[in-house]
Amino acid sequence: MRLSEGVEWGVHCAVVLAALPPGAVLAGKALAEFHGVSESYLLKHLQALVAARVCESVPGPRGGFRLARAPEALSVLDVVEAIEGRQPAFRCGEIRQRGPAAQGPDAAVYRVPCAIHATMLRAESAWREVLRAQTLAELVAAVGAKLDPETIRATREWLVGRIRA
Amino acid sequence: MRLSEGVEWGVHCAVVLAALPPGAVLAGKALAEFHGVSESYLLKHLQALVAARVCESVPGPRGGFRLARAPEALSVLDVVEAIEGRQPAFRCGEIRQRGPAAQGPDAAVYRVPCAIHATMLRAESAWREVLRAQTLAELVAAVGAKLDPETIRATREWLVGRIRA
Repeated sequence: MRLSEGVEWGVHCAVVLAALPPGAVLAGKALAEFHGVSESYLLKHLQALVAARVCESVPGPRGGFRLARAPEALSVLDVVEAIEGRQPAFRCGEIRQRGPAAQGPDAAVYRVPCAIHATMLRAESAWREVLRAQTLAELVAAVGAKLDPETIRATREWLVGRIRA
Repeated sequence: MRLSEGVEWGVHCAVVLAALPPGAVLAGKALAEFHGVSESYLLKHLQALVAARVCESVPGPRGGFRLARAPEALSVLDVVEAIEGRQPAFRCGEIRQRGPAAQGPDAAVYRVPCAIHATMLRAESAWREVLRAQTLAELVAAVGAKLDPETIRATREWLVGRIRA
């Protein structure tokens, strides 16, 4: 089981956008440079965030990306699902319907979800719940609380002039 | 994020083995036939269960597989981690250490885990906790409670004669 690299990139970008003044826009190029990652590859993930309505894309020479909603109204799960999709990690192949003890595909017993499948999905719900419970606003605060003054100073200095209102 | 097909196979096999009388052994061929899956492919997963001490392999013409511990002492997580490994799904690439605001690799700020990383791992802990809390004994009971009399009959009939003591 592995989440794609894009999840780390997407959440980091969302945190930076969530820390900007309301409505402020940052170019994809700036987001890529700030995180030291490939711009073209990052743009694919940013487009996924736009498609999922986590971000908005503002066109034009002063354009870029901003959050589509307030950081209090977006969860970490919104970002993760935008990048990774909403399909469950456990995909039940219904192997209970194969083999010598299996009944026909219309048997009533198969209308009840398999207990193994149910357990796996329950675990995924717990994973999702943790990510849903954390808003981007809270994550910005948690990230900020761990930063030292020098990193905060360097971040602010770099962002000033690159932020587009 | 996707779990391998082997997780479904491995948990189903573990449930069958957990339902057998204590010490009883079932050949890999029988486990494959019962689940309607490829024997050679299933054997790789069964070997992973043996390597993780979830199962024991009994050699010889009357050999096969059995659980290494009582079903009450094995969790669904034991089976899932045996197949899937214990690596976290979220692998932090420490991209916070790149870009214009980053400090040198020895900076004290990087000794504190990134809040984004911490959030992702907290979600995985919740996932793991659900699977750790469910024993194979409980899962056998849950699977059994959903089966109809015809499936139970067909399963028993098929297993009798194939079980090795």
